[in-house]
Amino acid sequence: METQEPADGPTDSIGPWAARAADPQYRAAVLDLLGALAYGELSAFERLAEDAKFAPGIEEKAALARMASAEFQHYQLLHDRLAEVGADPVAVMEPFVEPLENFHRMTAPADWLEGLVKAYVGDAIATDFYREVAVRLDDDTRDLVLRVMSDTGHAGFAVERVRQAIAEDPRVGGRLALWGRRLMGEALSQAQRVVAERDALSNLLVGGAQVRGFDLVEVGKMFNRITETHTKRMAALGLAS
Amino acid sequence: METQEPADGPTDSIGPWAARAADPQYRAAVLDLLGALAYGELSAFERLAEDAKFAPGIEEKAALARMASAEFQHYQLLHDRLAEVGADPVAVMEPFVEPLENFHRMTAPADWLEGLVKAYVGDAIATDFYREVAVRLDDDTRDLVLRVMSDTGHAGFAVERVRQAIAEDPRVGGRLALWGRRLMGEALSQAQRVVAERDALSNLLVGGAQVRGFDLVEVGKMFNRITETHTKRMAALGLAS
Repeated sequence: METQEPADGPTDSIGPWAARAADPQYRAAVLDLLGALAYGELSAFERLAEDAKFAPGIEEKAALARMASAEFQHYQLLHDRLAEVGADPVAVMEPFVEPLENFHRMTAPADWLEGLVKAYVGDAIATDFYREVAVRLDDDTRDLVLRVMSDTGHAGFAVERVRQAIAEDPRVGGRLALWGRRLMGEALSQAQRVVAERDALSNLLVGGAQVRGFDLVEVGKMFNRITETHTKRMAALGLAS
Repeated sequence: METQEPADGPTDSIGPWAARAADPQYRAAVLDLLGALAYGELSAFERLAEDAKFAPGIEEKAALARMASAEFQHYQLLHDRLAEVGADPVAVMEPFVEPLENFHRMTAPADWLEGLVKAYVGDAIATDFYREVAVRLDDDTRDLVLRVMSDTGHAGFAVERVRQAIAEDPRVGGRLALWGRRLMGEALSQAQRVVAERDALSNLLVGGAQVRGFDLVEVGKMFNRITETHTKRMAALGLAS
């Protein structure tokens, strides 16, 4: 398992969970993070499984089901960790239900190709986010986040199918490029709402456990890095973003 | 893992797959069986995941997602076995797509409790069927079928929830009893259609590899045993079947 880090991220350990969790603000931030990730995985399971209805054949249906099952395994790991540290998993996830359901409601795919692009882009954005956040965490939480991250990448099959569809009908590319922009836009919109409402989590995301002040500029930079990676990824897919 | 057998089933081994598969009729029957089971698991995944939309809370949604993921793991095992013995998994599953989709279309739950009863009854009927058929198989296929079967039983949580709902409002029991009858009726109806169309599979189901003649009476007896078990199960759930 590769533990890649953003170019400008800190590299040194901030110690084990047991030592850090004594700080109530740090504990609150990590619970928020795990809660957001956990419900993110559960809602990803649900939507991937639903989008499987567009699959043109059995193998394609199974490919989405495979991704959905992997998301559920991640949910279970994150859920169990919340219980292990004495939190109520459901209560911790609750604040993130609405933003995540909003995201999925606003980005319900209209067909198989939109579903594929969403599966691929969603998987990739999640990995980028895990990578950004992992370096700011205590050792135990980071190990969990990296373990969950290392198991993504089931969406590779989507790339081939999308490229093939664009090769067959270049107009498809224009439509899917628009769709990719909409996915990223809605993701940022819901993420910004979460950031505005969850101070402890925001502090963790932008500055690590040491930073106390809320810094919108740092949050903006993180979102920019994720957006840049998204742009490159869409280009690799044959889509202008 | 307990390898329970129906009271009147044969108990001795018919040998390994390698020895039996030389008989084209036996091979065709086992491919049919694995194809039916595989697509059954994939469609169960899809419907359980879809029915999760009725879940009243996060824990309940996760419980259905857990069952759905287990069904997908079973699909993968059965799919991989088909590929291993040189079959085209998609082609082998194809004849069972329509009966299984028909079953699910005719039994789409209207609410959370109907979804729970369907999850529980579906899981249980599948286990009964695996148990009936396992004793008629070569050692390798039987081991696979028993492995898939031993991993069911995720539906236990449904029993408690359904009982609780009936205790709170006894009228719910009448409605769900009707629903349980409809589930069993549709399952038998689709199964009988498959039996009528797939001679090799039917022969395997009723008499083991030795029997050649199609025997509707034996098929009927097997369905009766499964129906009797279903009846007892519904009673245990607090439902008259």
